[in-house]
Amino acid sequence: MAGDVPLSPLAPSGFSKLPAVAGVRMATAATGIKYRDRDDLLLCEVIEGTSVAGTFTQSKTCSAPVDWCKKSLAGGEARGLIVNAGNANAFTGKAGDEVVETCVAAVADQLSCRPSRVFCASTGVIGEQLPTEQIISHVASGWKAMADVDDVAWRAAAEAIRTTDTFAKGAGQTVQIGDAEVHIAGIAKGSGMIAPDMATMLSFVFTDAQIPADVLQDLLSPAVDDSFNSITVDSDTSTSDTVLLMATGAVKNQPTIKTSDDPALDEFKAALALVLKDLAQQIVRDGEGASKFVSVRVEGAEHDKAARRIGLSIANSPLVKTAIAGEDANWGRIVMAVGKAGEMADRDKLSIAIGGHVIAENGVAVDGFDEDPVAAHMKNDEIDIVVDVGIATGQATVWTCDLTHGYISINADYRS
Amino acid sequence: MAGDVPLSPLAPSGFSKLPAVAGVRMATAATGIKYRDRDDLLLCEVIEGTSVAGTFTQSKTCSAPVDWCKKSLAGGEARGLIVNAGNANAFTGKAGDEVVETCVAAVADQLSCRPSRVFCASTGVIGEQLPTEQIISHVASGWKAMADVDDVAWRAAAEAIRTTDTFAKGAGQTVQIGDAEVHIAGIAKGSGMIAPDMATMLSFVFTDAQIPADVLQDLLSPAVDDSFNSITVDSDTSTSDTVLLMATGAVKNQPTIKTSDDPALDEFKAALALVLKDLAQQIVRDGEGASKFVSVRVEGAEHDKAARRIGLSIANSPLVKTAIAGEDANWGRIVMAVGKAGEMADRDKLSIAIGGHVIAENGVAVDGFDEDPVAAHMKNDEIDIVVDVGIATGQATVWTCDLTHGYISINADYRS
Repeated sequence: MAGDVPLSPLAPSGFSKLPAVAGVRMATAATGIKYRDRDDLLLCEVIEGTSVAGTFTQSKTCSAPVDWCKKSLAGGEARGLIVNAGNANAFTGKAGDEVVETCVAAVADQLSCRPSRVFCASTGVIGEQLPTEQIISHVASGWKAMADVDDVAWRAAAEAIRTTDTFAKGAGQTVQIGDAEVHIAGIAKGSGMIAPDMATMLSFVFTDAQIPADVLQDLLSPAVDDSFNSITVDSDTSTSDTVLLMATGAVKNQPTIKTSDDPALDEFKAALALVLKDLAQQIVRDGEGASKFVSVRVEGAEHDKAARRIGLSIANSPLVKTAIAGEDANWGRIVMAVGKAGEMADRDKLSIAIGGHVIAENGVAVDGFDEDPVAAHMKNDEIDIVVDVGIATGQATVWTCDLTHGYISINADYRS
Repeated sequence: MAGDVPLSPLAPSGFSKLPAVAGVRMATAATGIKYRDRDDLLLCEVIEGTSVAGTFTQSKTCSAPVDWCKKSLAGGEARGLIVNAGNANAFTGKAGDEVVETCVAAVADQLSCRPSRVFCASTGVIGEQLPTEQIISHVASGWKAMADVDDVAWRAAAEAIRTTDTFAKGAGQTVQIGDAEVHIAGIAKGSGMIAPDMATMLSFVFTDAQIPADVLQDLLSPAVDDSFNSITVDSDTSTSDTVLLMATGAVKNQPTIKTSDDPALDEFKAALALVLKDLAQQIVRDGEGASKFVSVRVEGAEHDKAARRIGLSIANSPLVKTAIAGEDANWGRIVMAVGKAGEMADRDKLSIAIGGHVIAENGVAVDGFDEDPVAAHMKNDEIDIVVDVGIATGQATVWTCDLTHGYISINADYRS
């Protein structure tokens, strides 16, 4: 839609080599619904006994696939996943629900499983009916092409779910649970909290560890808060945002995991956090029009949640983001954004550092402050802001990108 | 700071002719603190017995002048007002409070009144100390030049408080309270919820009606909700936003007003609402980079507050605002913005009309919808969006402007 957008200048040097995850098979296909000459359909099969956890958009107008996943998550078990790119099946009324049921049934047929074991996601244009025939006709043929997932398949899967993304996104880790080596691999798409007509942040993460569904959910939710819920491109929230985590249990780790605070999970938790953070940051690095990757750390807040809210207020402020685009260390705009967050802050204790240089302290500009090193930092691709609001010990880090003419061009300079 | 920004294409044809308000005297002066060859200081004297009401920024990092006004408002009486443009006296620590005390004391000296009867506001750069000498030296000479306010003085006052505004803003009405003819006149400045370094929305409204302070506050607060609190340019909130309403009582209207629901006030209330709405809309029309004035009406919400929150979510969405800039009737982005507002909405009852043409109804695109008249509407300067969220009867209208390359240029393309 937005024409050929060049590769983001903030893109990583390449697609990471992701580990194989035992118990996961994948195939991709080209339905031709919207795109030519590229795959746009991802089919996954996970083995019997796979547990699943998920987090979804808070939108009050969420899409039909999100409704389906939320409902199916209650069972805690997964056997399959179907994802299409190019049409979000959002704001499509009752017909949209029927499309989901039809596609899911086609996958369930292949797996001889209950439909509620099949998860789904759609990303793309809002408000257009998704033509089911073109999907269903590729399910049967796709299933024949199913293969155990390897690094080539991960890349193909990440490519197939792209919409306006300028690069495919993946991240993986290999860690121990007890004596067992387990693998985590995930893919994601997104190029804005919501990219224009081509909506949505989606992420699918798989592990071959054996972890029950309730524990998996307890691991996923806080990790999503510190990753996908800590990024923002333009403050807009998609109708379709979906993160699914599936654990196949193909690796029989011991001891048996019963709670999320089992110390045997420490390494796994850290690795899951790394994978999700890596994927989330890749989305920011693909932010529409982004020319700078911005890290905003907030300290001294009433509690961690308040810190994140203040961080997001800064990261969402058009005035802060345009200042960064202009390479202007405009700390007055940061003060403004702290103030409008609505969380406790002490104006006369506030301090702000950019690129490690303290600009304002105890609520006033630092006397005799040397602008040169800060000005030099503002020319970097990666900008580092630290704010201490001087109340208590709450802290959080959020990530965003700058707001440039590129964002306006992508989102305003074409007609639908 | 932003260079010579040309007159907004959405500016009214000229400055309105405002009525004289008995009991108000004004003078303006050029301090030379920031600007050359223009007045940047406004001094007002109101007669003994003037009542005052106010509303202020919700920012947790509000400026020293806002702190002063909030405190002084408890007395309910005003004798003077001093406003400077070019320096916001915000984030200036304890020194900033002392600057306020010094300036206010200088005015109180001229009036031989208690300092708490003097109100003040500052707008401009954040984080720089305001040089008091240059202000104080102009208070005495300014006071000698004081004259009863007339249409020329209103214009001069509106010009003196401008920062990045591309035009001076004023609005007035003449109405009856009982048998008495009373006048309302107000001025405002603002070109963004916060304009970059040149912060702030300020408005000062005067009437010669005799209305006690508590009633005045009861009249002002809801009228501000439906005007200044119903506009947004970029979702950013200034540290200094201030609206003051002063009633001199120079016209002895009968009956004596005791409560805000006195039917004798009906005409006055409507006129006050008109004046505030006119001033608020002028601020949107001067929005940084604005090329279109957008009215968003929300109906069918749980209650009026929910309707305003949904309206502001639409009006603040960068994706909606860029679509309007691109003359694209992208209703999918409106659905998204309704969803993220967090207020109750029924996806399958939602309807959206643009320019009077229903695009989506009962949660789906209207069958066989004719795009041509909507496309024609999108080319206008004034865009009209109506959303029915299908829950109950709550309603609200908010106003905004589009998000264009001009906004990025003003806010990113210069260095401070």
